[in-house]
Amino acid sequence: MFFQVIDILGTIAFAISGVLVAQEKRMDPFGVLIIAFVTAVGGGTLRDVLIGQTPVSWMTNMTYVYVIFASTIFAIIFRKQINYLRKSLFLFDTIGIGLYTVVGIEKGLSIGLHPIICVSLGTMTACFGGVIRDILSNEIPVIFRQEIYATACILGGATYFLLQELPIVENFVFIISGLVVIIIRLLAVRFKISLPSIYKD
Amino acid sequence: MFFQVIDILGTIAFAISGVLVAQEKRMDPFGVLIIAFVTAVGGGTLRDVLIGQTPVSWMTNMTYVYVIFASTIFAIIFRKQINYLRKSLFLFDTIGIGLYTVVGIEKGLSIGLHPIICVSLGTMTACFGGVIRDILSNEIPVIFRQEIYATACILGGATYFLLQELPIVENFVFIISGLVVIIIRLLAVRFKISLPSIYKD
Amino acid sequence: MFFQVIDILGTIAFAISGVLVAQEKRMDPFGVLIIAFVTAVGGGTLRDVLIGQTPVSWMTNMTYVYVIFASTIFAIIFRKQINYLRKSLFLFDTIGIGLYTVVGIEKGLSIGLHPIICVSLGTMTACFGGVIRDILSNEIPVIFRQEIYATACILGGATYFLLQELPIVENFVFIISGLVVIIIRLLAVRFKISLPSIYKD
Repeated sequence: MFFQVIDILGTIAFAISGVLVAQEKRMDPFGVLIIAFVTAVGGGTLRDVLIGQTPVSWMTNMTYVYVIFASTIFAIIFRKQINYLRKSLFLFDTIGIGLYTVVGIEKGLSIGLHPIICVSLGTMTACFGGVIRDILSNEIPVIFRQEIYATACILGGATYFLLQELPIVENFVFIISGLVVIIIRLLAVRFKISLPSIYKD
Repeated sequence: MFFQVIDILGTIAFAISGVLVAQEKRMDPFGVLIIAFVTAVGGGTLRDVLIGQTPVSWMTNMTYVYVIFASTIFAIIFRKQINYLRKSLFLFDTIGIGLYTVVGIEKGLSIGLHPIICVSLGTMTACFGGVIRDILSNEIPVIFRQEIYATACILGGATYFLLQELPIVENFVFIISGLVVIIIRLLAVRFKISLPSIYKD
Repeated sequence: MFFQVIDILGTIAFAISGVLVAQEKRMDPFGVLIIAFVTAVGGGTLRDVLIGQTPVSWMTNMTYVYVIFASTIFAIIFRKQINYLRKSLFLFDTIGIGLYTVVGIEKGLSIGLHPIICVSLGTMTACFGGVIRDILSNEIPVIFRQEIYATACILGGATYFLLQELPIVENFVFIISGLVVIIIRLLAVRFKISLPSIYKD
């Protein structure tokens, strides 16, 4: 129940971020809806396809469809006001990637994949909706260029497997790793930390 | 047999639309062939991957491969003359999306998915070949920006499920829904109808 | 063992080609790693998804992950020196596509697909990592525009099925077809051969 609320808040934040990008590109309502949709479910869909869990998860759980649809209509109507929600949306988004990272990791574990692959799956779940959004909008994906975003997911994922070595209840492993993702992301944005540049000039 | 003819006409129209876009980007013959191919089969391929029907359908039915190959060569050779065929191609394309929408819906139904998901699958089957074509050509997909195209598929799909409630033979449900897609598309192009703009300026 | 060495050399060449493209786009370290990764495993991943062999192969064989990771770090650190390795990398890349083409063909054969589809799968395995790299970097895929690259794979694939008609040991069919890919690619680059242009002006 608690996790479901987070899941829905994350989905809302992802969908609205899609709407904003699509509107910048002046897409029509159908285009806006599709971009909202792929931003929200794209990461999990890619994960499901790569590990062979089909039909992919949003096809068998209508909650996502309804939440994305409602968020899109809300964001189109209250376009001007969305700015006031920026902080809440950023928070939902950040809590969302914390959850999605751990969900992706556990999907990988459930079919016996190597920890490194599981962390990749977690990061993919959290980040690749945005990657597909940017490709469909004809942009180089923003997470390939700046911001500690994927890195937070990777570090949270590493935490998950470190904690598993310790005698900790599984639920705590889940929650602490998710929190690590969230805290790193918040600190990075607060203190404008980014990955070290690999370019001299 | 009747549906197979429509399927082939649709495939021809889709493949040639791919050739035209690829030539605008001055791709070499291999690039042109690939774009023709993904335009024609991309939507159905994405659908099959997402619902887990693999190997995807064009791999087990050589008709598509031959038709696409022949259409591509034809369109390259008769490049200058293609313009005279624009009206026929538009008609084939429109009949094609009518068929593909309903085929996609029935694939979804056959594995027990929710009507809304089935309509998404139908729309995907009809429209996402063009989306992949545009992405590979480094353009924002045209159906996200203008034209009643996906909308026709969605309305046809809704018709399918409305008709299913009535005591109508299944074959008629199939045909009428497909016709709805076709007629909406034709009317929209004829009277230059598009989705209402969500932008004030 | 011999094939494994080729596989690793090919993976190194593909990953480094990804690093170079990503650096041109001034991506951050995470972006560079992802582009290196998809360039190296993208073709095989697409093939596995389309034929339904999931989890896709790099998820169950950690060698790829380690090799790509090491190649990426190497290429970032020795960025300036990579130029001296251009010839070796070109050779690894060429030997790599020879191997991947035949591996892709045999995967298709193993599930009973038509020879033309098998050749497509081989070409996809060898070439589509680069296609996905270019799309993620917001470029029209380079193999759609110039260079005998895919064409070498297609001709090598055709050779495979021609040789199968003859009374030749299977291992030789494998090796000769791979060599055909390699030799055509080398000759094409050496003598600057490209596909005939289909544009007059």
